Amino acid sequence: MTDCLGDGAGDMTPMDLYEKLTSQGDTVRTLKTEKAAKADIDAAVQLLLKLKVDYKQVTGQDYKTGCPPSECVVSQDNGPAADGEDMVDPWNVSTTNAKGVDYDKLIGQRGKHNGVSYAVTLCCLSFSRDMHQVLDAYEKNKSFYLYTGRGPSSDALHMGHLIPFIFTKWLQDTFDIPLVIQLTDDEKYLWKDLSLEDCHRYTMENAKDIIACGFDINKTFIFSDLDYMGASPDFYRNVVKVQKHVTFNQVKGIFGFGDSDCIGKIAFPAIQAAPSFSSSFPQIFKGRKDVQCLIPCAIDQDPYFRMTRDVAPRIGYPKPALLHSTFFPALQGAQTKMSASDANSSIFLTDTPKQIKNKVNKHAFSGGKDTVEEHRKYGGNPDVDVSFMYLTFFLEDDEQLEKIRQDYASGALLTGELKKRLIETLQPMITSHQERRKQVTEETVKQFMTPRPLNYSF
Amino acid sequence: MTDCLGDGAGDMTPMDLYEKLTSQGDTVRTLKTEKAAKADIDAAVQLLLKLKVDYKQVTGQDYKTGCPPSECVVSQDNGPAADGEDMVDPWNVSTTNAKGVDYDKLIGQRGKHNGVSYAVTLCCLSFSRDMHQVLDAYEKNKSFYLYTGRGPSSDALHMGHLIPFIFTKWLQDTFDIPLVIQLTDDEKYLWKDLSLEDCHRYTMENAKDIIACGFDINKTFIFSDLDYMGASPDFYRNVVKVQKHVTFNQVKGIFGFGDSDCIGKIAFPAIQAAPSFSSSFPQIFKGRKDVQCLIPCAIDQDPYFRMTRDVAPRIGYPKPALLHSTFFPALQGAQTKMSASDANSSIFLTDTPKQIKNKVNKHAFSGGKDTVEEHRKYGGNPDVDVSFMYLTFFLEDDEQLEKIRQDYASGALLTGELKKRLIETLQPMITSHQERRKQVTEETVKQFMTPRPLNYSF
Repeated sequence: MTDCLGDGAGDMTPMDLYEKLTSQGDTVRTLKTEKAAKADIDAAVQLLLKLKVDYKQVTGQDYKTGCPPSECVVSQDNGPAADGEDMVDPWNVSTTNAKGVDYDKLIGQRGKHNGVSYAVTLCCLSFSRDMHQVLDAYEKNKSFYLYTGRGPSSDALHMGHLIPFIFTKWLQDTFDIPLVIQLTDDEKYLWKDLSLEDCHRYTMENAKDIIACGFDINKTFIFSDLDYMGASPDFYRNVVKVQKHVTFNQVKGIFGFGDSDCIGKIAFPAIQAAPSFSSSFPQIFKGRKDVQCLIPCAIDQDPYFRMTRDVAPRIGYPKPALLHSTFFPALQGAQTKMSASDANSSIFLTDTPKQIKNKVNKHAFSGGKDTVEEHRKYGGNPDVDVSFMYLTFFLEDDEQLEKIRQDYASGALLTGELKKRLIETLQPMITSHQERRKQVTEETVKQFMTPRPLNYSF
Repeated sequence: MTDCLGDGAGDMTPMDLYEKLTSQGDTVRTLKTEKAAKADIDAAVQLLLKLKVDYKQVTGQDYKTGCPPSECVVSQDNGPAADGEDMVDPWNVSTTNAKGVDYDKLIGQRGKHNGVSYAVTLCCLSFSRDMHQVLDAYEKNKSFYLYTGRGPSSDALHMGHLIPFIFTKWLQDTFDIPLVIQLTDDEKYLWKDLSLEDCHRYTMENAKDIIACGFDINKTFIFSDLDYMGASPDFYRNVVKVQKHVTFNQVKGIFGFGDSDCIGKIAFPAIQAAPSFSSSFPQIFKGRKDVQCLIPCAIDQDPYFRMTRDVAPRIGYPKPALLHSTFFPALQGAQTKMSASDANSSIFLTDTPKQIKNKVNKHAFSGGKDTVEEHRKYGGNPDVDVSFMYLTFFLEDDEQLEKIRQDYASGALLTGELKKRLIETLQPMITSHQERRKQVTEETVKQFMTPRPLNYSF
């Protein structure tokens, strides 16, 4: 598995990486010239950035177009940044302070929940910014809480949407701590051609899918921005505090906003930042400002929280720590995220077993050869095969997974057989999610979304 | 009285105005070059703009530097704007639709409240944007409500702060309608070097002075943004609606924001806009979106409400109508607003009778001559005399006021005598305000500031 625990670039030579980077740079330029879909460009840029980080890690140098690598210095550890803080990027772990014992604890606790292997989520997370602080806090019986979220722009959730929540659920179970889940209906209203009512309706529907992941109602508060902003003066106060300490220049640099963007978009990052501070939830933390926050999220949310970490000390709050889950690829391949607007790009949580079978067979990008003869002779490429990638997320047994990889690479396993294996894994997972979702009543949603005290021991 | 009902420029020749404009343009340039205080520059710019409007009104032409007036066309009525809407500027009344009967009614109802003459407030208001709509609505027994506000950056209020509230109180008494008063503590936090706690404390203190003006507790809702935003999802929804429909380019043009301004300032205009829509107050208007709003305010708030009027139809709400009260001049002269930070620029609501006497005698700019002999011989100039200007705000009897003007202009009345007259008018006014303020309990403040239904008949 590439991207796994930050060692994805380990087995590539500097020249391999240099060539891959150059080619990916071309891809990004082509996509921009052709005015491709934003999601496609974003995914390509993410890959480009990842390659740049890998390149820096492997060569110790910054990538420059037209300048092939001159020497190879392998550095697995970025070390403390100049300002004395352990700044790590999304694909590397600074081990300066991260205690082995904590790390082991995290890795050691594997299991299975709702048909999804914990091992998977672990393989697909990157230890990141200030994670060691959180683990230190945990070791010392100090308190922290989890914060994650989602922008509800549709009621059609797909597997990719679920990954960060499965991951978060695992963290909640492991650490036994409070969790807040922000549904940014205001953001979706500002960005999309949707009414406030639609955005709020999507919020309530999405909440059901999230609840169906199995979160503990006694430890979890789910909120709509449109509702909670109007229900908590403390939340609004934190929003205004952040808004005072971030300039237009900064959000322009971070998010690429321009002069013709609406003022709502420009101010929004503060609303995503505010739940990183425990004082935004006085009903949960009883007015405490110092409870450390850990944010498990997809890598594309990093800009928001880089901004948040920058602001935090200036308004007297602890910086939130981040854990990134990797992108879940589209059926068409690893270059893009799944898209809710393209039914064939994803396995949706509402798909029937038949739809799942058809989608995987028809659309899952294959790393196999053109003919059975060629496949048997040369073998397939599991690293680009989407069915294999999906299995890395959902198969519990690492040995089994490794055997599939070897068989596929050798040609012993055909693409049709690999796809069948994925279909048989996905069908019961999706079916049981649908059953759990059916049991989520309006009353349950209301309970999860009511500002209230939560049960926790610190 | 200049600025009275839009006819201030009536007795100046086009050449007088041209020369005054040219000189005022120089003043503004000098102030900007010398990096004078913002309040001073603002006041000078306001006067410049007013003169330009007067010039256009008297000559029918736009003022151009270096181009003296070529002809004189008097136009008392701008007529309907190109888009068929009666766009009027703050110093002119479009009488196309304004019914004479309503206008008379407004003028006809003079009286005295808390020692302040209504006539005064009437003389110092300008009928403005869409006022005729409001009067039409009133004639047809249709509903409207009042909205005004204040930015609480200090607990030292002065007479100038009180004028819009006295005016608003008169409107409430006359029309017998609900009133909402916004205290923008969030704005002050964003603009000033103050803590959230300070801004909120100023809000509560300012509320007492406002309540002491005599507002009807059954018809008046006073709110702190910091509190009400977190108490009303409907208010936040309207804020977001406005924020979606205003771009950075627009607020840059209207308010002069730059790239280094914080995102809170950039987004704030939407928060001042939202109370213009009745759906921001479901507890008062029971969910109605169509109740027309009338905003009595100082002229410097006009940019906010021009923006609001621009946005309103695009989000399905009626445009608010505006009524401007004129600037209350500083003791030092009509070129500047009173400043809360300069104790000698203003009569504060906390001043003792002795302080009032000293301030007026020492600091009130005089239109009198240098010696008694000269004054008796040539007379004083009441139009630049601050004591006389103040009396126009507070003297009930127009005939008495006119006699003072004539006596001062002829030299029969000396500056000391004029000042004495003002002192004797101000001292009991301020004393009785202080007594009423003392009677405002925390409980009363809380009542005014609790979101709740109001009593009204539509």
